[in-house]
Amino acid sequence: MDANRVVVRVPGTSANCGPGFDCLGLAATIYNDLDLTLLEEETLTIEATGDGAETIPTDDKNIVWRAARMVIERSGNGDKFKGGILRMENRVPMSRGLGSSAAAIVAGLFAANEVLGKPFTRNDILKFATEIEGHPDNVAPAIFGGFTVSTVDHRGQVQTFSFLPKIKLKLVVAVPDFPLSTRIARQVLPKTVPLKDAVFNVGRASMLIAALINGKEKFLAGAFDDALHQPYRTKLVPGMQEVFSAGKKAGALGVCLSGAGPCVIAFSAADKRLENNIAVEMVQAFKRYDVQAGALILDLDTRGALVIG
Amino acid sequence: MDANRVVVRVPGTSANCGPGFDCLGLAATIYNDLDLTLLEEETLTIEATGDGAETIPTDDKNIVWRAARMVIERSGNGDKFKGGILRMENRVPMSRGLGSSAAAIVAGLFAANEVLGKPFTRNDILKFATEIEGHPDNVAPAIFGGFTVSTVDHRGQVQTFSFLPKIKLKLVVAVPDFPLSTRIARQVLPKTVPLKDAVFNVGRASMLIAALINGKEKFLAGAFDDALHQPYRTKLVPGMQEVFSAGKKAGALGVCLSGAGPCVIAFSAADKRLENNIAVEMVQAFKRYDVQAGALILDLDTRGALVIG
Repeated sequence: MDANRVVVRVPGTSANCGPGFDCLGLAATIYNDLDLTLLEEETLTIEATGDGAETIPTDDKNIVWRAARMVIERSGNGDKFKGGILRMENRVPMSRGLGSSAAAIVAGLFAANEVLGKPFTRNDILKFATEIEGHPDNVAPAIFGGFTVSTVDHRGQVQTFSFLPKIKLKLVVAVPDFPLSTRIARQVLPKTVPLKDAVFNVGRASMLIAALINGKEKFLAGAFDDALHQPYRTKLVPGMQEVFSAGKKAGALGVCLSGAGPCVIAFSAADKRLENNIAVEMVQAFKRYDVQAGALILDLDTRGALVIG
Repeated sequence: MDANRVVVRVPGTSANCGPGFDCLGLAATIYNDLDLTLLEEETLTIEATGDGAETIPTDDKNIVWRAARMVIERSGNGDKFKGGILRMENRVPMSRGLGSSAAAIVAGLFAANEVLGKPFTRNDILKFATEIEGHPDNVAPAIFGGFTVSTVDHRGQVQTFSFLPKIKLKLVVAVPDFPLSTRIARQVLPKTVPLKDAVFNVGRASMLIAALINGKEKFLAGAFDDALHQPYRTKLVPGMQEVFSAGKKAGALGVCLSGAGPCVIAFSAADKRLENNIAVEMVQAFKRYDVQAGALILDLDTRGALVIG
């Protein structure tokens, strides 16, 4: 392959995981690929296939290219590489709560960093990605894989801890046919919340992390519940509570919004019949609210962004 | 020993651990002992030595005896055992934020359960103790030892997960010479809090649990911080923020109120000089605010309540 070319693969992600609003995330086995060539001449070719390909900007407003430019410039290569060829194959559904924008940003940063001989670490890339995205919830698992806990300190420094749970979990995702902008999903949140709701989530998030790391399935009961963001987003996702109930009734260990929605993600023990049943029941529950939805049955991605060519 | 007699040992505890308001706790190597004999006749003898011994009720209002009675009655032994002899040796400072009341309750429940041939499990005792104390934060670590995550569901069911961290931590506690009632320390808390403060704590608590279980010391930086209860309690504990700063400056990994205070607990790597230095600096910081304080340097208790005779 050309010395200035690389192909990278970046996972889709699910933020919040119920109680972990704005700090927990996970990477799933659904991927966007980016074939990037950096050029000395100032020409830009952007081609995309797959989900939402027709809506992707093909000029320098393209988010993948903007991310790549950040790495090129910050590594002092702005004068050397002025253009590029980007070929994307997108499988992560756009604006559904599965981290399509984070996958795009991480792909651009990660690929450019590889072409340039890795001037930056994965932690640097986390920092850059958080700068662009505004929060680390999705970019962190897209970079590191697994489950992630991320915090931002008062100076804006991001810290991410990535871990693989001892429990084998399947991720059953119901994907509604309408997009939901994260900006709108944030506008419906209140500025203040009851202290008891804060305590509710602190306890559930703590229990969730402890149970996942130690592999104690019985402690997951109730640990995916949330009082801080989902209740306010009910109105944006028709049938949300009903879909949660349908997933739980079908045997899911927990069900929650994926990111800001509208995708709903159920956590299931690994059992094909059980997984399928949860998928069918959630899709049917959406249908009762006139929402057409598809289903994805995924595993946890354990590697994060990686070079595939 | 008499068939109706047992001696039990119950650890002091520290709730909240910074971000884990009303859900995290730990047990420390400071203990109250209870020597309990159940009697058929309706006579009650209560003797106490140690911290606060002179203030302890010696009639049937005594909390240790009330707890013991709960186990006697719920196990159907109310007609058989009507009295008792209780001898207590108390080392946990009273009303300082080290779980003296939880230790008393757990001692009574646990000892009576032992004398009666263990009609109840530790989880039953957790349930009873939470009924009496009102919340599981301190009773859970007193029963199970180690660090604990506790949640209470909408039906009032308590679930506790206990774990031992992979990091060897020393607990350096500054113990002010004044008591603080938990009731008053709760009254100063607001009913609602900023959503961003809730998110702050969810992230820190998650990071704290993950770092402790995995033994990653560097992720503890900032993980003991809190925005949900300590800021409101500053006025009840003169010099609190200054003591936090002094402990951190002296090398503590994190510093927070122990429970509702007034004790301040610092988490330190195991290093005698470091531990002593943290203790001295925190005590001196309190002194600058005219608060006389002693210091305790403790380990994590790993066993919880146990029979010692």
